[in-house]
Amino acid sequence: MNAVRFEGRDIISIRDFTRGELDYILNMASEMEEVAKRGSDMLRGRTLASLFFEPSTRTRLSFEVAMQKLGGTTIGFAEPDISSIKKGETLADTVRVVENYADVIVLRHPLEGAARFAAEYARVPVINAGSGAEEHPTQAMLDLYTILKEKGRIDGLDIALMGDLRYGRTVHSLAYALSLYDVRLYFISPSMLRMRREVLDDIKGRVDVVEEENVEDVIPKIDVLYVTRIQKERFPDLSDYEKVRGSYRIDLNLLKGAKDGLIILHPLPRVDEIAPEVDATPYAKYFKQVWNGVVVRMALLALVLGALE
Amino acid sequence: MNAVRFEGRDIISIRDFTRGELDYILNMASEMEEVAKRGSDMLRGRTLASLFFEPSTRTRLSFEVAMQKLGGTTIGFAEPDISSIKKGETLADTVRVVENYADVIVLRHPLEGAARFAAEYARVPVINAGSGAEEHPTQAMLDLYTILKEKGRIDGLDIALMGDLRYGRTVHSLAYALSLYDVRLYFISPSMLRMRREVLDDIKGRVDVVEEENVEDVIPKIDVLYVTRIQKERFPDLSDYEKVRGSYRIDLNLLKGAKDGLIILHPLPRVDEIAPEVDATPYAKYFKQVWNGVVVRMALLALVLGALE
Amino acid sequence: MNAVRFEGRDIISIRDFTRGELDYILNMASEMEEVAKRGSDMLRGRTLASLFFEPSTRTRLSFEVAMQKLGGTTIGFAEPDISSIKKGETLADTVRVVENYADVIVLRHPLEGAARFAAEYARVPVINAGSGAEEHPTQAMLDLYTILKEKGRIDGLDIALMGDLRYGRTVHSLAYALSLYDVRLYFISPSMLRMRREVLDDIKGRVDVVEEENVEDVIPKIDVLYVTRIQKERFPDLSDYEKVRGSYRIDLNLLKGAKDGLIILHPLPRVDEIAPEVDATPYAKYFKQVWNGVVVRMALLALVLGALE
Repeated sequence: MNAVRFEGRDIISIRDFTRGELDYILNMASEMEEVAKRGSDMLRGRTLASLFFEPSTRTRLSFEVAMQKLGGTTIGFAEPDISSIKKGETLADTVRVVENYADVIVLRHPLEGAARFAAEYARVPVINAGSGAEEHPTQAMLDLYTILKEKGRIDGLDIALMGDLRYGRTVHSLAYALSLYDVRLYFISPSMLRMRREVLDDIKGRVDVVEEENVEDVIPKIDVLYVTRIQKERFPDLSDYEKVRGSYRIDLNLLKGAKDGLIILHPLPRVDEIAPEVDATPYAKYFKQVWNGVVVRMALLALVLGALE
Repeated sequence: MNAVRFEGRDIISIRDFTRGELDYILNMASEMEEVAKRGSDMLRGRTLASLFFEPSTRTRLSFEVAMQKLGGTTIGFAEPDISSIKKGETLADTVRVVENYADVIVLRHPLEGAARFAAEYARVPVINAGSGAEEHPTQAMLDLYTILKEKGRIDGLDIALMGDLRYGRTVHSLAYALSLYDVRLYFISPSMLRMRREVLDDIKGRVDVVEEENVEDVIPKIDVLYVTRIQKERFPDLSDYEKVRGSYRIDLNLLKGAKDGLIILHPLPRVDEIAPEVDATPYAKYFKQVWNGVVVRMALLALVLGALE
Repeated sequence: MNAVRFEGRDIISIRDFTRGELDYILNMASEMEEVAKRGSDMLRGRTLASLFFEPSTRTRLSFEVAMQKLGGTTIGFAEPDISSIKKGETLADTVRVVENYADVIVLRHPLEGAARFAAEYARVPVINAGSGAEEHPTQAMLDLYTILKEKGRIDGLDIALMGDLRYGRTVHSLAYALSLYDVRLYFISPSMLRMRREVLDDIKGRVDVVEEENVEDVIPKIDVLYVTRIQKERFPDLSDYEKVRGSYRIDLNLLKGAKDGLIILHPLPRVDEIAPEVDATPYAKYFKQVWNGVVVRMALLALVLGALE
């Protein structure tokens, strides 16, 4: 494995990466920890364009900071209304315009497949910062990196994904990524929001999968708890929502049975699915994920722009 | 007094500062005049996040330029609608996310007390760029700095604050700040918009205060005239507004009785409370305040980030 | 001709430039090709303010990238709603505020004459990035530069401007600019959208002008085809629009009669006036124009900021 394989490469789906490649990225992210603190000129003179056809402040700022910490500069737009680019222009044309301004394009788009489509037209690397309901590969990479950094390994862990496993943008990418490792996965959700069949089919055979509705039963068995929000809008009948809501809220009481080294992750923003009282416990790693997102994105930018070897 | 006391410090309210500290900041601002012209690498590798939950282009640009002139970089958002951060996320969580991206947070927020609250959660310094109707400490500092720079001193001056003294965001901070100096204050306003009782109570005993409704009578006595806008919306009865409006407009005729060295300040934007014919007179210093805001903010950024000694 | 004449100069209208000056700018743009690739510190410590009172992502990003490639930094706003500056503040005041933040102002404004007005108040150079329906001088310069770069010369060419010649913002500036060269101009449009009389009067006598309704007849005769969009909104009667629409669409069939070296330009965004099948032909230069816009703007920024000699 070497960096050469990444130069010029698009980052569209977590499914485009082998375990070896993911391990390589995680390793590079680790090397970026020091660089992030002292700053670098690695990407001096290079420009990142962030094209957010759908607002996502957190992801946008994370990429921009990653670029700046490597000495590069950023341009772009934060929401579609600002963008006159959208006035009837095709995404293919937008991309062929912006590749004249930037060395790498970070794209967020409401449509499924938009990032892959853009990458076909762009001569510069395209990084998918979320397209449609499914893919958000850099989030899955920073989740992996957080597990590795906090637990020292990914193999051999018992990992639960909890909440809305049906519609959640991040859990599908993460489930796939984890299936490349030797882990046992627990999928904890209300029956209405169970992990999609196609994801299950995809990863079964590679990892052990246990589906559960009850959080309490799983807590004592796991090393990692990945929590996602359950959105009210998913329930046609609001009383169904009220029923499940309380059962999928992590608080100190629920954590009494937890292993000592349990870590709790969350893609953020958190609403009320994790009680604030959990924030001060050693379990809580969700704000640390934010920093990890920066170093993972630094590694990706440096790799696709050919600045690492 | 030394810079060590400022490293890591939040800038929330003008009331948190002693006269000695204010003098020290004004002195550092003065040293920044040269730095601002030639540029500097003092904050190279450092990042400022500007979180504007309420738009304020002038203040945002001023902080961003201040950071850039010191070699630092900036990220952030200019208005809440752009920010997906706001989607149900608490300010406490937002701050704990953003402190992973930035070395200092500049916050503008519609809610009273938001900056102080944010500072309690953030590990990095928070600078209040306006929260609620009351505090905007860096504006008061740049006002002080303008007086000092133009008049050579603050002590011994006769200073009038005119216009909406009841609701104006800047006049309360400025009145408090000036009360730390040996000045005589004139508060000139329609009776409905008199300076709030609690501000008067707070500063009385420290400085002489004269309340007036008539501008003309005061003009010949003062060295500094600080003008603020009277907003139509403050008057339940529009005819009351029409009555006072003309009397609180500064023009050449009114200035006939002014002292030679009078300086006129205004926090901007100005609507019609100062006639354009005044702009060309030596009295007008309101556009110079804008530059002064940049050097004051450079000094503050350098101080809280520990780049000065 | 030398750079001294450009230091501090405003770029408001293409009509303010002699042929000698335009040639000089094109020559400097050419020298920027290499600088754009390797980056430069020519404008280190300098700040560009982009004030977009009307959104135009393409133009804004182009100026920002140009500034960054020269080592400068950027501030500004991308749309008026974000700008608290606009709250009742006059453009004259806004400019006198922003000149304290920036070394050069790039202004886009919906009002005719706004850029000229701003330039009268600003001590720093103002560059017009589009004001009202008429002037967009840097677009005309990049169009000239594209012709020169692709054809090796401008003199002696047969050049067609096609589409909406009546309301199109760019064609008037370009027609004027081309009239300073030894060219033959074809104006191809539906009769309703013919080139304005005052533009024709202005350039006649200097260049040969042929007005045509039929594209096909002109194609075999020309070296350059400049296509602009015909907007549905211009037609009071929609059936009139439907009639002309198809006749002003460039596709492979229409291009069968073209000269070998024909180049097709377009100010972008393109909607359907050029068929996507044309993109892959050697005629298509409209995406290359985007890059050319960057180097032309680099040259202008370096010139007005006195960084070239």
